[in-house]
Amino acid sequence: MASASADAAAGEESLRRALSEKQVEVDAQGSVVRELKASNASKELISAAVEALSALKLEKASIEKRLQEIMSASNGGHQNKEAFRQSVVNTLERRLFYIPSFKIYRGVAGLYDYGPPGCAVKSNVLAFWRQHFVLEENMLEVDCPCVTPEVVLKASGHVDKFTDLMVKDEKTGTCYRADHLLKDFCKEKLEKDLTISTEKAAELKHVLAMLDDFSAEELGAKIKLYGITAPDTKNPLSEPYPFNLMFQTSIGPSGLSPGYMRPETAQGIFVNFKDLYYYNGNKLPFAAAQIGQAFRNEISPRQGLLRVREFTLAEIEHFVDPEDKSHPKFVEVAKLEFLMFPRELQVSGESAKKMVLDEAVSKGIVNNETLGYFIGRVYLFLTALGIDKERLRFRQHLANEMAHYAADCWDAEIECSYGWIECVGIADRSAYDLRAHTAMDEKTAMEMKAELETKGEVEFQVCTLGKNVTIKKNMVAISKEKKKEHQRVFTPSVIEPSFGIGRIIYCLFEHSFYTRPSKAGDEQLNVFSFPPLVAPIKCTVFPLVQNEKYEEVAKRIAKSLTAAGISYKIDITGTSIGKRYARTDELGVPLAITVDETDSVTIRDRDSKKQVRVNVDEVASVVKRVMDGQSTWADVLWEYPSHHSASADE
Amino acid sequence: MASASADAAAGEESLRRALSEKQVEVDAQGSVVRELKASNASKELISAAVEALSALKLEKASIEKRLQEIMSASNGGHQNKEAFRQSVVNTLERRLFYIPSFKIYRGVAGLYDYGPPGCAVKSNVLAFWRQHFVLEENMLEVDCPCVTPEVVLKASGHVDKFTDLMVKDEKTGTCYRADHLLKDFCKEKLEKDLTISTEKAAELKHVLAMLDDFSAEELGAKIKLYGITAPDTKNPLSEPYPFNLMFQTSIGPSGLSPGYMRPETAQGIFVNFKDLYYYNGNKLPFAAAQIGQAFRNEISPRQGLLRVREFTLAEIEHFVDPEDKSHPKFVEVAKLEFLMFPRELQVSGESAKKMVLDEAVSKGIVNNETLGYFIGRVYLFLTALGIDKERLRFRQHLANEMAHYAADCWDAEIECSYGWIECVGIADRSAYDLRAHTAMDEKTAMEMKAELETKGEVEFQVCTLGKNVTIKKNMVAISKEKKKEHQRVFTPSVIEPSFGIGRIIYCLFEHSFYTRPSKAGDEQLNVFSFPPLVAPIKCTVFPLVQNEKYEEVAKRIAKSLTAAGISYKIDITGTSIGKRYARTDELGVPLAITVDETDSVTIRDRDSKKQVRVNVDEVASVVKRVMDGQSTWADVLWEYPSHHSASADE
Repeated sequence: MASASADAAAGEESLRRALSEKQVEVDAQGSVVRELKASNASKELISAAVEALSALKLEKASIEKRLQEIMSASNGGHQNKEAFRQSVVNTLERRLFYIPSFKIYRGVAGLYDYGPPGCAVKSNVLAFWRQHFVLEENMLEVDCPCVTPEVVLKASGHVDKFTDLMVKDEKTGTCYRADHLLKDFCKEKLEKDLTISTEKAAELKHVLAMLDDFSAEELGAKIKLYGITAPDTKNPLSEPYPFNLMFQTSIGPSGLSPGYMRPETAQGIFVNFKDLYYYNGNKLPFAAAQIGQAFRNEISPRQGLLRVREFTLAEIEHFVDPEDKSHPKFVEVAKLEFLMFPRELQVSGESAKKMVLDEAVSKGIVNNETLGYFIGRVYLFLTALGIDKERLRFRQHLANEMAHYAADCWDAEIECSYGWIECVGIADRSAYDLRAHTAMDEKTAMEMKAELETKGEVEFQVCTLGKNVTIKKNMVAISKEKKKEHQRVFTPSVIEPSFGIGRIIYCLFEHSFYTRPSKAGDEQLNVFSFPPLVAPIKCTVFPLVQNEKYEEVAKRIAKSLTAAGISYKIDITGTSIGKRYARTDELGVPLAITVDETDSVTIRDRDSKKQVRVNVDEVASVVKRVMDGQSTWADVLWEYPSHHSASADE
Repeated sequence: MASASADAAAGEESLRRALSEKQVEVDAQGSVVRELKASNASKELISAAVEALSALKLEKASIEKRLQEIMSASNGGHQNKEAFRQSVVNTLERRLFYIPSFKIYRGVAGLYDYGPPGCAVKSNVLAFWRQHFVLEENMLEVDCPCVTPEVVLKASGHVDKFTDLMVKDEKTGTCYRADHLLKDFCKEKLEKDLTISTEKAAELKHVLAMLDDFSAEELGAKIKLYGITAPDTKNPLSEPYPFNLMFQTSIGPSGLSPGYMRPETAQGIFVNFKDLYYYNGNKLPFAAAQIGQAFRNEISPRQGLLRVREFTLAEIEHFVDPEDKSHPKFVEVAKLEFLMFPRELQVSGESAKKMVLDEAVSKGIVNNETLGYFIGRVYLFLTALGIDKERLRFRQHLANEMAHYAADCWDAEIECSYGWIECVGIADRSAYDLRAHTAMDEKTAMEMKAELETKGEVEFQVCTLGKNVTIKKNMVAISKEKKKEHQRVFTPSVIEPSFGIGRIIYCLFEHSFYTRPSKAGDEQLNVFSFPPLVAPIKCTVFPLVQNEKYEEVAKRIAKSLTAAGISYKIDITGTSIGKRYARTDELGVPLAITVDETDSVTIRDRDSKKQVRVNVDEVASVVKRVMDGQSTWADVLWEYPSHHSASADE
């Protein structure tokens, strides 16, 4: 696919060139015709020149047609993707996987509710995350508040640097993200304007590539250069200026303690490093983890669940000796092979390719074993959830994308209808974060010492008491000592895998969605092929017909499912069994139990639609085995007699 | 206990009365002595009068002493409680169950982090909550954002009424909760001042009882009457005025969309009622549930985890036909018997007493079966976690505590060192919440109709698009219709059990904590007797001595525990086994596995300290059975040979 699109790009470029050359010829020949007419040349001469002009125009039209074809081919893929997305999103919203929040009050952009099936998927994903990372690695999980005082986010750099560039409609005051407007302009031009020259097209593509690196001034200059105006009103736009993306608030009643809703969960771990290190017996390496809400006051959210104002993050901070980043369990993931997209391939315009993880580490493509270990574990996590491994790649950050302190950084990107989406960031952030929070640095301590010596006392704000206390000279001693120790003093490095849970879930929805024709062939039915691990409901219970005996059996089965800890949905409506199957296939329920006798029932598999007969008393244990992964559906097919029923097979 | 304290109260009252009567006698006799002396009476007369005065003074001193004794007895209980709390809290903070947030930046009052063991307890409590309520009742769980636009909280009444009364130090501007200052003043007087009269004491007690009902004016008048000043500076205080407890913020970049961090999770369910009702097949009753963070910007937080600025709520909204509040599963909880504290007992000054739930419902003490069902389920939930059933009571709200729309309301209160704490509220809120959010009421619709008819168009803000759209007359039709339907139209009633997870966890910590002497008898060792369900770590693995063979076995066992999904802690330090047991008893780890041979190991029970020998290959399954509740420790003692080891029994 990547090389096909490269061909297309090459074709587009040569056609654009041919088109503009032809235009020059057409213009020249046009002048010839006009001059001949003006100088009263002979009829023959004039008609020959006109004929030549027509021939040139035909040639130009033919080039235009070919260019149009190439562009609508890539555009057609785009349209298919849009149509696919529309049918996934329609299904998701109709079945309440997620819906815009506060809909009855006309909603708020960038805020979504997870309805019952979406909430269940999310809690399954989080439970598996705990199992796969926290329990497996004995991580120290913590749970810190969202409300964060300014001083913490000042130290971390968020107060000063967590910004996006914004422009305002100069008349209405409506706000836009400056880079989005420039991006939309460039894409629109490239996709719809046949007349732009090869050079112009190359320039626009360069702008798109450099978008993230532009300063406010550079963005402003481009917006001015291209004459970009406010999309809704066509009014002129202000110069771009930074807008801080944190939700600001005030802590306590005084109005004097500014705070923010945390933009990430990591800071809660960093500020507790010393206690956690002590809890771990003062030994490195160890990892802490946190699952929680994070907040970004996006200027103009779009792309549904992918860019929202409040989201669930799951973050790991693995603290390690900067001089020893080996990992004892690396061997367990070393032989995994998957799509990697190192810096070099990106720069040379190649596409991602499959690599074996330990080769990538030993060749130095991945900076160290610990980083490699987490890349491998993330791969296992995502594919276990049901992410298609052919549409998952690990992309290394380019030098200009990485913060100066970072040693290496890889994003797990998942391809969906919006393109390749960063869902997990795995960064070796070196010692930056811990250094930022070094408690009472030497400078502050020395200032306090000076004040104590001159005034005899110093005010010290103790926020836990909500007031200032006065420390007098005789209460404390602050001194600068030189200690000679036979100990290496260092700040640990942090390796941080950070998971955007909502993005992973959205991509999982797209990867799990398919349609198949109904039995009558008159409509397409939607299916989510969730693996048991993430399926929102594990099975359904249907009495085949409305009848007291069957309903009694259904309730007995329901009770045994609850006792086994299996979520189910019981549907005793008189709707046709085929319709009831279709309804729950659309929720991604893996197994359906149809009560069609009082001793035994059928169990149907969602994807194969095959059925087996199972005794009522065994139902819960069969379902539990498949849900826990102890048995596969193939095992069940082998163990139990298969069942065919016309009525039940829609 | 309650009746003992009633006796004490009666004794205190009669002593105060006797004391002031005696004072009158002393004063009178003093005058007699003075008059005799002034009138140069005979020596005998004077000395008889002085003797009588001395006798009266002795009698007064004796009464004072008895009063002092009674007061310090109740105060002594208070001091014991404080000492107990201090040792629980010290252990909790030292072992990182929870710690003040942002400690390295001197903390923020009312914000706490759960460290590793606390976070594990919390996630076990939440997982059990999901199992016990959501799964068992097939509830519709949703997950809504914390950031909430003003319009929603305006409708719910929070913008106008979610306030506490505050006073300011008129010189420094420091803020205090007005009712707290008055409460502290009254308690201090009652506990420490012997001279106040019976009438004064009764007045102060009345003030304490009425505290929640005082208006701003009444509170202000009492503060003035008692001459209460700012605790830190003794400066005068401002008049009390309402302070809204919601954290305010602004949504989006314009600064024109005010929002708040939600003060409860319930509103997210109410605004989605229509969709959830549809999801449930348009059938009542059904319940929705939500677990999530809620925020209250407390004026001056105190009492540790019990009054914080950010906390986890788990809320259920059970929607039911107002004319049929029966519950099909009520029979399952009907015979439960526990402490109930109905309105009548509170008003008549009696204490809570044990009642059988179905009697309480049939006598109309509990308003209806559904409310009764949830009271029973909450009782089962809390006691399964390890809450002491003798220190758990269900207290009915007094008429003046309940909102006017509520039909009935019961709080699950748990007794801890701070007194009886409301941990779960179970309210029949009638139709109030759904009515508050009725989308576009008739009035708004009719106004829009009028505007369309006069101007031909109307502006309509669509927040999901982040802009206004203009609706023209020909696009919509708004009409008022009268429909005659054979349907009863009603707004469902809401029965709301609402759980303060942090409060439950704190009370659980206190109820689980005990100390026992070390083997040497030289110190008290701390133990948390958590049941397996909530224990933060299920077992520990200790090689008895540092030795490669034992460590190999320990690692094999660790691996099998991970595979079985059991959390464990491995400790391969050379510390004495007794010390290692003590360390993990303090974390509430139920079982300890000591590797003292290569084929079999010992498993030790935390509370009985008894040990059994188990083959290495069986260890994980034995631990898992006990943790899942399939076996008890008594079963294990019966099945496996017991083990005695001097070294391992500290």
